[in-house]
Amino acid sequence: MGKSDEIKDYVLKRGQKASDVVSQMEAAGFQAEGVALAAGLVKEMVEDGDCRVFLSFTSNMVASGLRGAFAKMVKEGLVDCVVTAGGSVDHDIIRTLKPYKKGNFFADDVKLHRRGVNRLGNVFIPNDRYAALEKWLRPVLSELSEQSSTWSPHALIGELGRRVKDRSSVLHQCAKRGVPVFCPGITDSAVGLQLYLFSQDRPDFVVDVVEELKAAIDFAFDAKRTGAIVLGGGISKHHTIGVNLLRGGLDYSVYVTTANPYDGSLSGAETNEGKSWGKIREDGRTVTVRGDATVVLPLVMSGVW
Amino acid sequence: MGKSDEIKDYVLKRGQKASDVVSQMEAAGFQAEGVALAAGLVKEMVEDGDCRVFLSFTSNMVASGLRGAFAKMVKEGLVDCVVTAGGSVDHDIIRTLKPYKKGNFFADDVKLHRRGVNRLGNVFIPNDRYAALEKWLRPVLSELSEQSSTWSPHALIGELGRRVKDRSSVLHQCAKRGVPVFCPGITDSAVGLQLYLFSQDRPDFVVDVVEELKAAIDFAFDAKRTGAIVLGGGISKHHTIGVNLLRGGLDYSVYVTTANPYDGSLSGAETNEGKSWGKIREDGRTVTVRGDATVVLPLVMSGVW
Amino acid sequence: MGKSDEIKDYVLKRGQKASDVVSQMEAAGFQAEGVALAAGLVKEMVEDGDCRVFLSFTSNMVASGLRGAFAKMVKEGLVDCVVTAGGSVDHDIIRTLKPYKKGNFFADDVKLHRRGVNRLGNVFIPNDRYAALEKWLRPVLSELSEQSSTWSPHALIGELGRRVKDRSSVLHQCAKRGVPVFCPGITDSAVGLQLYLFSQDRPDFVVDVVEELKAAIDFAFDAKRTGAIVLGGGISKHHTIGVNLLRGGLDYSVYVTTANPYDGSLSGAETNEGKSWGKIREDGRTVTVRGDATVVLPLVMSGVW
Amino acid sequence: MGKSDEIKDYVLKRGQKASDVVSQMEAAGFQAEGVALAAGLVKEMVEDGDCRVFLSFTSNMVASGLRGAFAKMVKEGLVDCVVTAGGSVDHDIIRTLKPYKKGNFFADDVKLHRRGVNRLGNVFIPNDRYAALEKWLRPVLSELSEQSSTWSPHALIGELGRRVKDRSSVLHQCAKRGVPVFCPGITDSAVGLQLYLFSQDRPDFVVDVVEELKAAIDFAFDAKRTGAIVLGGGISKHHTIGVNLLRGGLDYSVYVTTANPYDGSLSGAETNEGKSWGKIREDGRTVTVRGDATVVLPLVMSGVW
Repeated sequence: MGKSDEIKDYVLKRGQKASDVVSQMEAAGFQAEGVALAAGLVKEMVEDGDCRVFLSFTSNMVASGLRGAFAKMVKEGLVDCVVTAGGSVDHDIIRTLKPYKKGNFFADDVKLHRRGVNRLGNVFIPNDRYAALEKWLRPVLSELSEQSSTWSPHALIGELGRRVKDRSSVLHQCAKRGVPVFCPGITDSAVGLQLYLFSQDRPDFVVDVVEELKAAIDFAFDAKRTGAIVLGGGISKHHTIGVNLLRGGLDYSVYVTTANPYDGSLSGAETNEGKSWGKIREDGRTVTVRGDATVVLPLVMSGVW
Repeated sequence: MGKSDEIKDYVLKRGQKASDVVSQMEAAGFQAEGVALAAGLVKEMVEDGDCRVFLSFTSNMVASGLRGAFAKMVKEGLVDCVVTAGGSVDHDIIRTLKPYKKGNFFADDVKLHRRGVNRLGNVFIPNDRYAALEKWLRPVLSELSEQSSTWSPHALIGELGRRVKDRSSVLHQCAKRGVPVFCPGITDSAVGLQLYLFSQDRPDFVVDVVEELKAAIDFAFDAKRTGAIVLGGGISKHHTIGVNLLRGGLDYSVYVTTANPYDGSLSGAETNEGKSWGKIREDGRTVTVRGDATVVLPLVMSGVW
Repeated sequence: MGKSDEIKDYVLKRGQKASDVVSQMEAAGFQAEGVALAAGLVKEMVEDGDCRVFLSFTSNMVASGLRGAFAKMVKEGLVDCVVTAGGSVDHDIIRTLKPYKKGNFFADDVKLHRRGVNRLGNVFIPNDRYAALEKWLRPVLSELSEQSSTWSPHALIGELGRRVKDRSSVLHQCAKRGVPVFCPGITDSAVGLQLYLFSQDRPDFVVDVVEELKAAIDFAFDAKRTGAIVLGGGISKHHTIGVNLLRGGLDYSVYVTTANPYDGSLSGAETNEGKSWGKIREDGRTVTVRGDATVVLPLVMSGVW
Repeated sequence: MGKSDEIKDYVLKRGQKASDVVSQMEAAGFQAEGVALAAGLVKEMVEDGDCRVFLSFTSNMVASGLRGAFAKMVKEGLVDCVVTAGGSVDHDIIRTLKPYKKGNFFADDVKLHRRGVNRLGNVFIPNDRYAALEKWLRPVLSELSEQSSTWSPHALIGELGRRVKDRSSVLHQCAKRGVPVFCPGITDSAVGLQLYLFSQDRPDFVVDVVEELKAAIDFAFDAKRTGAIVLGGGISKHHTIGVNLLRGGLDYSVYVTTANPYDGSLSGAETNEGKSWGKIREDGRTVTVRGDATVVLPLVMSGVW
C-alpha cells in the first residue's frame, strides 16, 4: 500500500472549487469517499461513447432544487433516458407554472391544511398549484386523445414535455433531446388523477403499461453498454435495474439512497445485491452513497464537470 | 397527569402471551409505545363496521414470513382491499410453487449469481423459482387473453388469485373473499416481464392503469369511513393515501416504516404530513411506528387478536 | 438445502405466547430472523456456565420500560456486569423516587421548558425529578466522602445501589447480587453535576477512571469465556468490546442498534467489525439486530425464557 | 411569501465554487437547505465576538479526512474549545506518526484480523499504529507523572498536544492556541489502555473526571454567549450541551447527525429537544442536518469561508 492508499486530511480553503472539495473526498473515508467515487463512475459512464445512461429519481426530488440539476444533465447530453415515478411529472409541470415554497419539517399539518398548503418534507405546495396543473392539462389531454385512445406513459409524457417551455424543466429538456421518460407507475400522481377524471368522459382512453415496459426493455437491450444513476428507491430504482436484466445487466451503477438495507427492501439495497440477480453485471462497476440526494448530487456533478 | 400517564417498567415472565407484552409496550416509551398504539388503532378500524380497511405493503415483505400474516388478515376479514407493488404478485405465486430459502445479508453476490441464486436481503431465491412462475403463468395469460384483450391490474390479479390454491397465499385469500388487490405499478415485476413476453405474440394485449385508478378511487369513495395499515413505502404507500384524497381523507392510518422523513420522501413521512394534503382527515387517528415490519407486524397483530 | 433452510410464513393466532412468535421469526427473514437468532445466542451465553455476560445499554433506555427488563435480567442471574453511561444512574435512581411520564415526540419544546418539563424522545421528565435526585444524593455523597476521597465509578455506583430500595431498579439488583456497573463516562450526567457541586466544598473529592478501566479489564480477563448483550451505541458499546480486547475478544456478542454503519461509527457497526480488532474472537458467535431496543429486547428475552 | 421564499432549481456549472453551491442549497429544500442554514449559523457564531464556540465530534471522525478540517477550524480561531471522546486522542496522535489506509466496508474481518488490520468502517488501521502510539506515549506519561499524580483529561491532553508537531493535528493546534479539549470519557480508548498499563507500575496515578467537568462548566459559565457545532452523537454531544445547562443554555447550536430521533436517544435528537432541558436557550438559534459529517462539514465550512 502506497501514498495513494492513505486517508488524507482535508485541506479546506477560502474560495475553493466544489470539484476540488470532491476530489479531496476520495481520500477522506466514510461516505465522502463514496461521493468522490460516484463522481468518477458517473464521469466514466457519460464519457463512454457506447453507454446508454439511465437517470432514475423519486418524485419528491423534483419538488426540490434537484429539478434544475436533472434538466441540466439531460440538456448536456449526459443522460439517455429517465425512469421516474408519477409525481415527478406533476412537480415538473407545476413548477413551470408556479413556484413551490420553502417550508419546514415541523409545521402544524392541520393548520397547513386549513390554509390550503400541502407539505412535502420542508417544501410547501399551495393547493392552487394543483388547480393550475388541472387547467393546463385538461386541454392537452383532449388534444392527445384525438390522436390516439391508447397511450404508453413515456409517449404521453413526451407530448407533455413538448408543450412545456421552461429550461429548468426535466420534461422540456427530455422532449427537446428525444430522451424518453419511462414511468411505469404514472397513475400514482396528480396527473393520474386527471387521467382518471378525463376518462370519466372518455371511457375508451387507456394508458397501457405493457407497451411501456417493452419500450424500456428494448431501450436497454439495444445498447452496447448501460449505466444507471439511481437516486432514491421505490419503483424508479427497481424498474431501472429490472429492465436491464434481459440484456445481462448494467455495466455501471451509482446508487444514492437514504434507505436502509436491513429490511430487505430494494430501496436500501447495496449495488452488489443487483449482481446476484444479473441486473448488474458480475464485473459491473458500482458505487453506493448513503445520503440525501439534494446534498450528494450537486457534489457528484461538480466532480464530473 | 395520573397513573395512566406514567412510564412503567416491563414485567417480563416465562410463558407470557405476546398480547401481554404488547399491552405493556403502551407505557414503555419510544417505539414500543408506537407498537401498542398501532395495535389499538388497527383494532379500532377493523372493528368499525363502517370502515373499509386498506392493507398496503412492499414486495419484499411477501418474500418474508409476513406473507402468512397478510393472508391471515385477509382470511379473517380484517382487510377490505390490498394495495401493493408488482413484485408482491411474483413472490406470492412463486411461493405456492416452491419455497424461498434463508440466506444472509453479507453473501458474496457474484458467487450467488454463478450459483443461480438471487438475493433479497437475507432471503435467497434460486432462479428456478422464476422459471416455475413462467411455466405457471403462460397458460393462464393465454386463457385470460381469450376473455379480454384489455385488463386492469386488479382484475388480472383477481384471476391469478382464483387459480392459486394455497392457504398462505395472499392472492388466494383475496380472490376467495372478493378483496381487490390494487397494483398500479404491476409491470415492474417478473409478472410484468411475462406480460411483456406474452405481448410479443399478442400485441393487442393491454394492461390499463387508468381503469385501475378508477376502481381504487371508487372503492375509497363509496366507504363511510376508511382506514389504512401501511407497511413500508414506495408506490403502495403513496397510492393508498392518494386514492383516499377525493373522499376527504383516511379516518385511521397506521404507518410502519424504516425510511427517514428528513429527505422529504413519502416513504419516510409521518402520518401527519398526509393531513396537510387532505389524504388523511384533520381529525384522522394516526400512529407511525419506525421499525422493520417483519418484527413489528406480528406484535401489532398479537395486540389486535 | 432442506426444509430447515426455508422461509416460512407466519402462523399467527389468538393468545399466542411471545416465545412462539419469536421462534417463528427464525424462518421469517429480514430483521425478524435476527431477533430469533439473538434470542438463541443470548440463551447460549447465559446457559454457558463459564461465560461472564456483559449487559451494555445507553442512558435513554433506563428512562423507558426497559429498566424493568434490565433489573429482571440481573435479578435472574443472567448478567455478570453492566456497562453503561452516566445518565443511566440518574434515571434509575430518580425513577425509584418519582415516575416519568408518557409524552410525545412532537411536543413544543419551548412550551415544555416553560412548564418545567424535559423531553427525552416521547418521555417527559418534570424538573422536580432532578430536584429529588439532588435531595437524595447529597447526604449519600457526604457519607461516602467520609469513607474515602477517591472513588472509581463502579465502586460509587455500587454504594448508590445499596441505598436504593426498588425491585425494578437496575442499581438495586446489581448491588444485591454483586454485579458491578462500569461507567467510564459517569460525570456526563446529573449525578456528575452533583459530584461537581459537591466537590465545590470538598475539592479533594476525586473520581478516578483509570481504576475503573482496570476493574473492567480484569473482570473480562479473569473469565473463561465472555459474552455481551449490547443495546445501542456510544461509550457503553465501545467500552464493552474494548475491555475484552486484552483477553482475546468476546466469545458471544449480540448487538441491537438503530445506528447506521455507513458513517464509520462504532454505534452503527456490525459485530463483524469487532473481529478485525480482536475485540470479538475470530470464531466468536455474533448477531446484529437493527431496531429499537424497547421493541426488540422484550422479544429476545421472551425467546430466552 | 415573496421570491425569497421560493424553492429554486440548482444552477450547476463547471468550475463552480463550493461556496456558490452551498449558497444555492438554501433554496433547494430537504437536507440541502439544512446545510446552507448550518453554514449561516456557524458563520454567525464564529463572528459573534462575545460567543465561545464549542466543537464536538466523535472519535471515528478523527480517523477520516475531517481531522484536517477540525485542525484548520482551531487554527483559524473559529473554535474556543473541543469536546470529544477518548478515541479522538488516539487517532489524532497516531496519524502524526503513521497514516491510516483506505479500506472498504465489506472486507472480510477475520482475514483482516489475521493480517493485523483493524477496520473502522471503510478505514483500515494496521496494528503497528497502536504499537507506535504506545512507544510515543510511555515516556510522555512518565514525564507527566513526575509533574503530578492527579490529572484531569483536558490538562493531560493539553500536554500531549504540546508534544505533537503536525499542523493537521487537532491536539497540536489546540495546544498552540490554548483551546481546551474536554474528554470526560478519556479512558474508553487506546490512550486509556496505556493509562491503565502505566498505572500498573504507578498505582497512585489518577485521572480525575470531576475536575474535568468543573473546568468545562466554568468555561461555559464565564462566556457572554455560547455556541456549539456538534458532529455525531454519544458522550461528546451530550456533554457539550450538558455543560451549558447551568449558564442557561446555548445561544447557537448546529447538529450534524446520522442517528435517528425515534428511539429517544440524544444522538439522534433534534436541537429543539435541548430547549425543553434548558441546555439550549428558548430563543437559541438552531439547525439540525441529517447526514454524514465527512460530506456535510466541508460544505458547511465552504459556506462559512
